[in-house]
Amino acid sequence: MKRAVVLLSGGLDSATCLYWAKAKGYRIDALGVDYGQRHAKELKAARAIARKAGARFTALRVKLPWLNISSLVDSEKRLPNVSLSKIGAGSIPSTYVPGRNTMFVSFGISLADAVGAESIIVGANTLDYSGYPDCRPDFYEAFARVAKLGTRRGVSGKRLRIDAPLLGKDKAGIVRLAGRLGVPLRHTWSCYQGGGRPCGRCDSCKLRRKGFAEAGVKDPAL
Amino acid sequence: MKRAVVLLSGGLDSATCLYWAKAKGYRIDALGVDYGQRHAKELKAARAIARKAGARFTALRVKLPWLNISSLVDSEKRLPNVSLSKIGAGSIPSTYVPGRNTMFVSFGISLADAVGAESIIVGANTLDYSGYPDCRPDFYEAFARVAKLGTRRGVSGKRLRIDAPLLGKDKAGIVRLAGRLGVPLRHTWSCYQGGGRPCGRCDSCKLRRKGFAEAGVKDPAL
Repeated sequence: MKRAVVLLSGGLDSATCLYWAKAKGYRIDALGVDYGQRHAKELKAARAIARKAGARFTALRVKLPWLNISSLVDSEKRLPNVSLSKIGAGSIPSTYVPGRNTMFVSFGISLADAVGAESIIVGANTLDYSGYPDCRPDFYEAFARVAKLGTRRGVSGKRLRIDAPLLGKDKAGIVRLAGRLGVPLRHTWSCYQGGGRPCGRCDSCKLRRKGFAEAGVKDPAL
Repeated sequence: MKRAVVLLSGGLDSATCLYWAKAKGYRIDALGVDYGQRHAKELKAARAIARKAGARFTALRVKLPWLNISSLVDSEKRLPNVSLSKIGAGSIPSTYVPGRNTMFVSFGISLADAVGAESIIVGANTLDYSGYPDCRPDFYEAFARVAKLGTRRGVSGKRLRIDAPLLGKDKAGIVRLAGRLGVPLRHTWSCYQGGGRPCGRCDSCKLRRKGFAEAGVKDPAL
């Protein structure tokens, strides 16, 4: 059975990737990372969603003291509250976590090389996103070359890809795809704040709300 | 003051890189990783060497359950004991740790982006090495592109390089360079076995012995 690694944060995008991989018939290893994010509760969501999908889930934990410069890690900092039209349009926001996706993908490459998976699947998209540099297609293209050159699997000539099936989609498109794939959306967690209920004010809440509204779907997590 | 991140395992090669960076005038953040390697004592060596060099040292710890497939992590497995002429010449040995350098470099990229370092310095070399795919020049070239595309620093057009100053050197050349740079060689630890004294039989011990012998230098750590 062909295998894939899915980077699963527990949000809308990565949960949709998980079910996309499931629909493709992959045996899935899902991977979440606790890097000190204020919304580490997203990993609980990830675990629940992975269980529903029948995927094995591993939560890694790594403490990187320098990540405190990000407002997504240092909860003493204030999260940005900008209007929807400005999200992703300006400079990189304070929620940017240096090297986050680089580290996530590298964990995925390690796991894929260890278990013999042909694909590392990531939920990156650049239409409705916060403007992080490590979400863009050319970043993943360059990383696919790293995976090919730096692994036992890659140098042996076996398949090892990085797939980003949501790259061309906006949030509404992702919501619609999630619906078709049967993603248990009520279990997903997107809010950066990580409180009891979604805050409605962070970039992630706003983009999610826009997606559901444009798709004409009620968000079952609210 | 220009800054660099040095990936510091505590062995001969990375310690030489640290002093190479020091000689270049960098303010240095040195980074070690405990990934469950049987010779995690190398991190003690790394810390001592960083202190001597006046570099800040951070040891990360990350538990990746799948790394048990490597004989460098699972101490129930036997380390290979092959003749010097066969090291690096055949297939990838059992000490290969899937994605290890990919993860190390990604930690370095994260740190470099957070503190504003222009270089991530790695001790890779391919003349006297164990034959791991993640030690070769094209791997680091591809990774430099990832660093450029996936970081705040990179996309802002500031310098962000991956430097591998030992790439063209054999072990004897590294020993000679270490001597010129004043590396405290007696504090370095290379043996994979991680016992009280170097085992003399693992790839790493054999390559190190060859280097000192060819350079005509007595190894002060023996």
